[in-house]
Amino acid sequence: MSEREFLHSTIDFEREKRQGASEVIYAEHKRPQHVRDIAAELVANGQNVFATRATLEHYQAVLEVLPEATFDELAGVIQHKINHVEHEQLGKIAVVSAGTSDLPVAQEAALTAEFLGGDVVRISDVGVAGLHRLLSRIDQIRACQVIIVVAGMEGALPSVVAGLVDKPVIAVPTSVGYGASFGGLSALLGMLNSCGSGVSVVNIDNGFGAGYQAALITRLKPHQA
Amino acid sequence: MSEREFLHSTIDFEREKRQGASEVIYAEHKRPQHVRDIAAELVANGQNVFATRATLEHYQAVLEVLPEATFDELAGVIQHKINHVEHEQLGKIAVVSAGTSDLPVAQEAALTAEFLGGDVVRISDVGVAGLHRLLSRIDQIRACQVIIVVAGMEGALPSVVAGLVDKPVIAVPTSVGYGASFGGLSALLGMLNSCGSGVSVVNIDNGFGAGYQAALITRLKPHQA
Amino acid sequence: MSEREFLHSTIDFEREKRQGASEVIYAEHKRPQHVRDIAAELVANGQNVFATRATLEHYQAVLEVLPEATFDELAGVIQHKINHVEHEQLGKIAVVSAGTSDLPVAQEAALTAEFLGGDVVRISDVGVAGLHRLLSRIDQIRACQVIIVVAGMEGALPSVVAGLVDKPVIAVPTSVGYGASFGGLSALLGMLNSCGSGVSVVNIDNGFGAGYQAALITRLKPHQA
Amino acid sequence: MSEREFLHSTIDFEREKRQGASEVIYAEHKRPQHVRDIAAELVANGQNVFATRATLEHYQAVLEVLPEATFDELAGVIQHKINHVEHEQLGKIAVVSAGTSDLPVAQEAALTAEFLGGDVVRISDVGVAGLHRLLSRIDQIRACQVIIVVAGMEGALPSVVAGLVDKPVIAVPTSVGYGASFGGLSALLGMLNSCGSGVSVVNIDNGFGAGYQAALITRLKPHQA
Amino acid sequence: MSEREFLHSTIDFEREKRQGASEVIYAEHKRPQHVRDIAAELVANGQNVFATRATLEHYQAVLEVLPEATFDELAGVIQHKINHVEHEQLGKIAVVSAGTSDLPVAQEAALTAEFLGGDVVRISDVGVAGLHRLLSRIDQIRACQVIIVVAGMEGALPSVVAGLVDKPVIAVPTSVGYGASFGGLSALLGMLNSCGSGVSVVNIDNGFGAGYQAALITRLKPHQA
Amino acid sequence: MSEREFLHSTIDFEREKRQGASEVIYAEHKRPQHVRDIAAELVANGQNVFATRATLEHYQAVLEVLPEATFDELAGVIQHKINHVEHEQLGKIAVVSAGTSDLPVAQEAALTAEFLGGDVVRISDVGVAGLHRLLSRIDQIRACQVIIVVAGMEGALPSVVAGLVDKPVIAVPTSVGYGASFGGLSALLGMLNSCGSGVSVVNIDNGFGAGYQAALITRLKPHQA
Amino acid sequence: MSEREFLHSTIDFEREKRQGASEVIYAEHKRPQHVRDIAAELVANGQNVFATRATLEHYQAVLEVLPEATFDELAGVIQHKINHVEHEQLGKIAVVSAGTSDLPVAQEAALTAEFLGGDVVRISDVGVAGLHRLLSRIDQIRACQVIIVVAGMEGALPSVVAGLVDKPVIAVPTSVGYGASFGGLSALLGMLNSCGSGVSVVNIDNGFGAGYQAALITRLKPHQA
Amino acid sequence: MSEREFLHSTIDFEREKRQGASEVIYAEHKRPQHVRDIAAELVANGQNVFATRATLEHYQAVLEVLPEATFDELAGVIQHKINHVEHEQLGKIAVVSAGTSDLPVAQEAALTAEFLGGDVVRISDVGVAGLHRLLSRIDQIRACQVIIVVAGMEGALPSVVAGLVDKPVIAVPTSVGYGASFGGLSALLGMLNSCGSGVSVVNIDNGFGAGYQAALITRLKPHQA
Repeated sequence: MSEREFLHSTIDFEREKRQGASEVIYAEHKRPQHVRDIAAELVANGQNVFATRATLEHYQAVLEVLPEATFDELAGVIQHKINHVEHEQLGKIAVVSAGTSDLPVAQEAALTAEFLGGDVVRISDVGVAGLHRLLSRIDQIRACQVIIVVAGMEGALPSVVAGLVDKPVIAVPTSVGYGASFGGLSALLGMLNSCGSGVSVVNIDNGFGAGYQAALITRLKPHQA
Repeated sequence: MSEREFLHSTIDFEREKRQGASEVIYAEHKRPQHVRDIAAELVANGQNVFATRATLEHYQAVLEVLPEATFDELAGVIQHKINHVEHEQLGKIAVVSAGTSDLPVAQEAALTAEFLGGDVVRISDVGVAGLHRLLSRIDQIRACQVIIVVAGMEGALPSVVAGLVDKPVIAVPTSVGYGASFGGLSALLGMLNSCGSGVSVVNIDNGFGAGYQAALITRLKPHQA
Repeated sequence: MSEREFLHSTIDFEREKRQGASEVIYAEHKRPQHVRDIAAELVANGQNVFATRATLEHYQAVLEVLPEATFDELAGVIQHKINHVEHEQLGKIAVVSAGTSDLPVAQEAALTAEFLGGDVVRISDVGVAGLHRLLSRIDQIRACQVIIVVAGMEGALPSVVAGLVDKPVIAVPTSVGYGASFGGLSALLGMLNSCGSGVSVVNIDNGFGAGYQAALITRLKPHQA
Repeated sequence: MSEREFLHSTIDFEREKRQGASEVIYAEHKRPQHVRDIAAELVANGQNVFATRATLEHYQAVLEVLPEATFDELAGVIQHKINHVEHEQLGKIAVVSAGTSDLPVAQEAALTAEFLGGDVVRISDVGVAGLHRLLSRIDQIRACQVIIVVAGMEGALPSVVAGLVDKPVIAVPTSVGYGASFGGLSALLGMLNSCGSGVSVVNIDNGFGAGYQAALITRLKPHQA
Repeated sequence: MSEREFLHSTIDFEREKRQGASEVIYAEHKRPQHVRDIAAELVANGQNVFATRATLEHYQAVLEVLPEATFDELAGVIQHKINHVEHEQLGKIAVVSAGTSDLPVAQEAALTAEFLGGDVVRISDVGVAGLHRLLSRIDQIRACQVIIVVAGMEGALPSVVAGLVDKPVIAVPTSVGYGASFGGLSALLGMLNSCGSGVSVVNIDNGFGAGYQAALITRLKPHQA
Repeated sequence: MSEREFLHSTIDFEREKRQGASEVIYAEHKRPQHVRDIAAELVANGQNVFATRATLEHYQAVLEVLPEATFDELAGVIQHKINHVEHEQLGKIAVVSAGTSDLPVAQEAALTAEFLGGDVVRISDVGVAGLHRLLSRIDQIRACQVIIVVAGMEGALPSVVAGLVDKPVIAVPTSVGYGASFGGLSALLGMLNSCGSGVSVVNIDNGFGAGYQAALITRLKPHQA
Repeated sequence: MSEREFLHSTIDFEREKRQGASEVIYAEHKRPQHVRDIAAELVANGQNVFATRATLEHYQAVLEVLPEATFDELAGVIQHKINHVEHEQLGKIAVVSAGTSDLPVAQEAALTAEFLGGDVVRISDVGVAGLHRLLSRIDQIRACQVIIVVAGMEGALPSVVAGLVDKPVIAVPTSVGYGASFGGLSALLGMLNSCGSGVSVVNIDNGFGAGYQAALITRLKPHQA
Repeated sequence: MSEREFLHSTIDFEREKRQGASEVIYAEHKRPQHVRDIAAELVANGQNVFATRATLEHYQAVLEVLPEATFDELAGVIQHKINHVEHEQLGKIAVVSAGTSDLPVAQEAALTAEFLGGDVVRISDVGVAGLHRLLSRIDQIRACQVIIVVAGMEGALPSVVAGLVDKPVIAVPTSVGYGASFGGLSALLGMLNSCGSGVSVVNIDNGFGAGYQAALITRLKPHQA
């Protein structure tokens, strides 16, 4: 095995065929030059670039080789699209978030879904302690086919939303909180124990995972199987 | 020290004077005859009897000496009142509970508050996954001065209630749930991390503690200090 | 509030309209006669009966009023259908389970999805330590639109399955295991940290939740929103 | 949705009417300019400003738009009052703290209660290992209507105080300690398991929550309901 | 290795010489006949018998071979002394306990210390929520050389006692409590984080360990080393 | 309450009389000037200064007012003695530590015991994985009256030492380790579950607590009570 | 899928070829008749039977079809060998256990290794609190090629053993203990943090896993690869 | 005891004889000059130097005394060999890792095994979500005698590998992950609960421990005992 392969990742160029999406770069803990090199190699192989948990340093390194790449600082996402992903959609994806501090995770979810061809509606600052804000936007949420709900602290929002809709809800706990939130554990446990039906949960702060699954759902085609 | 004192509790007959309530018997893990003896001694000293976490066996033992004692099987509470506790009240106490399985804890809270002279309004089965049920009774809740909210699983109800009222909310997590509820831990953490303002929390399944504090609050008298 | 309402649940007869499914009875910790009474009332209101975590005692009580009700002992599910639920389906739901001990949870998931109109394919005993068993059935799994994966112990199966398909995977950790499985915690954490994309997770042993969400997904209709 | 709304919070200007207090800014993790902008908008809408967990940087940003704002460095609280909040009070609020290191949290509690119109008595350095210090000030504590008790490490002070008074006690665990204090967990568990009656608990280091609830209690008016 | 040695324990008859006490039988999980056989063998080798965590069944088995053995049902301790242990003592050992439910553990501590020649003073029902009870007996406690403090729930008593004396305090957390006491974890953490100086801690419910160490301390002889 | 009292600690000048030792300064999280001021005030009142968890910055501040104060950098202890503490001793205290990284905690224990008049023997680098090192020094350990054992990682040393001596063992878990040592939890649990008799435990890294208790023990006087 | 396959396990008859051992039956939670049927089917296919965590009821069911099966009650293991497994061995396997209560797990390890052809030396009751017992048998241990060490409570024995030998040590934590042993967690963490080199760990009470790995090691053949 | 001995470690020069390897320096938390001094002393005594968890600063200090020492930055390992370690080997050791971020731990394992004379095959980036990558290299893995498997997140790779080989598998969980990976806990629990047979586990990120045990195994010699 060459040194190069050992230090970087072995890129899986067949993944798009097998799983419907090219490889995504998880930038956290990777050095800027490694992210840059993987991005360059993806593009050289005709694939789109999507990097999560990226910092400005990662972005600057990527710009050296892909000067048209974009960076969403809120979500920490670098993108460079060379192929237009177009999938017939079952409908829209709502990304609903509880508080201001949950926005980076919500945005990661939204950008991921959009990268995979999804059509996203963003609804923010509708935490359960101010129910009128949620109720005033419930029709917008009900008009979507899949609902991603992002919340920290007690993680109660998915339960309330699930009780108001008849669509699948993907809950994303965030590490927002302090003290007995234990880095997002309280929100995670709250969502896993949701009394609402039709709720599933992803890892703490895993906006990417929720956006990915939501996009897979809206890509489903009737009578395909 | 006599054998008797060592094996039973030393009853604190001055407690009523000092803290405004006679001693309460926590029956769990106590033998029926011990609960019976403590009850008899309280009455012999002119004090009311209130025992929590009691079983039918405890009750049958108490009946041997106090044939007029009553038993609430749902809450596991034995009572025998010889003094009428009368305190001028600031207003009513709402005991709001999420699901059917939370009722034993809610009833323990309600009976405790009533034992201490409180005026209780019971509102049950208003969990957050069916918001319309809660909203249809919110005016009744708002008419109270203190609100006890009892919920298991994700423990989201106190946050929602606190956002709809301007009164103190005492949250009681219950051990209702399974799997990642970890015996009530999920509800407890949810309530401690409530995004609602004005919420405090008692131990898991501690209906007694919530009812007790609520009663202390409604006993407060203006300009007393 | 009447004694009756306090002790039982307030049945939400509008739920079917609002959420697309009548109320489900969670029988655990409920007394047989309560489950019987709720079942009778649902039928009296023209709704189907579906009770989870039920025992033979619950079933015998239900038989008193609904002699045609059926009982699946493996999953602990009582059913009585008076309305035929018919939803146009996007496709089939795979229920894939790792070991023999995971079957009760897998069956709860399968029966729930079927109760809501889903078309279920059951694939069992394909744990990751014997990969050839999974690979020999992968085409069957790929032919489904949603995949429920049920596993205890280290909970690795969803990661492996997610890497082989391009459909949403709903992972169900089970409490199967001993020692450091800590009642299903190891499987739960494993699934939440899955390196596979498109995986979401429900509570430990929550076959019902996974089946419910899977059914919601296969009910989605294109261009609805 | 506009970019602006997405990045900042949606201020809830009706909150004062609904809940009796304008929105409070939780400054932690917010950028100085965001805190500044929210503060300016609150004042522009005729509302008071109260920001917790603020740093000197936050304060300097706020001074750009509200040069008369004040900063309590110990508690990390920025204030700017344009409306005088005046509520008839049931009596005083005691803020009792165990050790020197608990003072920031105690001061957050005190300032919050005062912001909401409460009348606060501060009593510090009365930890249980030097009981004479507590006993020498117990009359001052007994003269209050609500007692906030702030303590880290083993969190024993609320139990001792609750045994000496007949008023509601709101316990605030702090993250003061090391090793097996696990960031405040030991104090939190200690307070939740208090053998004293009439004790409820808020999140670790949540002086704000305790001060808020105490103020709600002293605002209660007899015969209101 | 013989079957006999494999199934039972290898008794360490030299232990008395090496460590100053014969082997103690931990009866929990041992079959009655095994406890009986070990007891018989100890006596046959001229050693005293002391078995903890014993049940009535264990005792009845021991009576078959040692008809003069005694049983303390409260503590679950079987004893049979053939050698009189006499050690010059530095002074008395106080065994102080918080509530009635802590008595089995307190009694195990007291009997263990006495078995090793200690002179024990028992003081019970002096929990911190009723401080007057503790203060009324503090002189008795101060007259001892070592103080064992036994408490469950929040485990606050050792901190209070340590602040009132200048002697070593050995704290014993008990599993008394419910909900967030997590089987004695709250008391254990409370004691480990005690703000009192001179406090050390043994395992949850380990009255034996505390009594043993206290006896070792009172056996110390000046200028021995 | 004056600002001064609120920001600093209320020094307990009677503590020496009541508990046999002047107040100790826990410097962690205290500002250098606060440590300096408390130190100055202690000396002004004729008391010795002993500060733990101190940094070079703390020391430099103390030097401004007490130019003869000393600093042990390994343990982080500042001292300034004006009274010679002289207590007749029962014998020596051994401070036994497992690995190099445990030395700061061991030294804190040793200095604390010496500050209180104890006579300390230091024995280091005798971890259980190299048993011959421990055995070669066991006679030195046996010659002491109290044994403090300091260890991180699996915390096994106290069990081994307790099996070789007939004196009280005070175990100090350290946070030395990584991964599943969880900040000292593994060593703490190991010591609490020690199969050795006569072992008690203090908080993680609490060398001070162990040294303090050991000194209290060696100060005990026969026939005092 | 047939009902039969769904309710029982799909037996993997190729496993012996692929992994060097026929399937083992984990009897816990399986019904006696299922264990009987699987055993019968294994024998019908020319494979040996080895069932762990079996009870007397399981054994009685197996006897119906395999009257020559044997049962080790201590370990809960049922065996029936029709093929003699013969592998050239690298050497002996030591199974070393700390206390009497650890014997069931030690015996499960020993029987598993023997079932796979291993040559086992059993050494019991050599816990670290009585070091002389271990040292007196260390030569026997050193004469083995692989050492399995079984211990509960603080789990210190593997560290001590690993320091005395130059062979691989497989550590098995047991659930023996109480209180802060948390069902074997203390022993597990102790072993994972072992300061001894060459130690690896299996799940709590997993004697089977340790015996299996030890047998795999002694089957290794030089120059095979 | 001299100051020098107290501050540094007591080097165990007999270890090579007793355990087959000279002492290894665990550099984390050690000051560069201490690592330098220990390294110099080892070489002065004719021993090889191997330091783990070293930084560039450690390396630069070592270079002052051992200018030919080498540094592997990926693994953080400093080496200086003066004796050639030559052991007849049973065969090769595979070091298999799941993702790019697991490489530092994998490399630590590989270098440790090689330092002890092992013959290592490195296989990386074969995580379970891309099974084809693992299957394409399985023959290479099967050709080894011991297999080290390194993985973070859900830690599923050892189960899959163990199902495909008949050799001992040593699993190394890494702290790679976020949120509910809790610093490697999820991978650790996953591996401990592996459904694969023949798997044992070392501490989180403990590549050294796995490499050490693997080398011990490949050093075993037939018929030695």
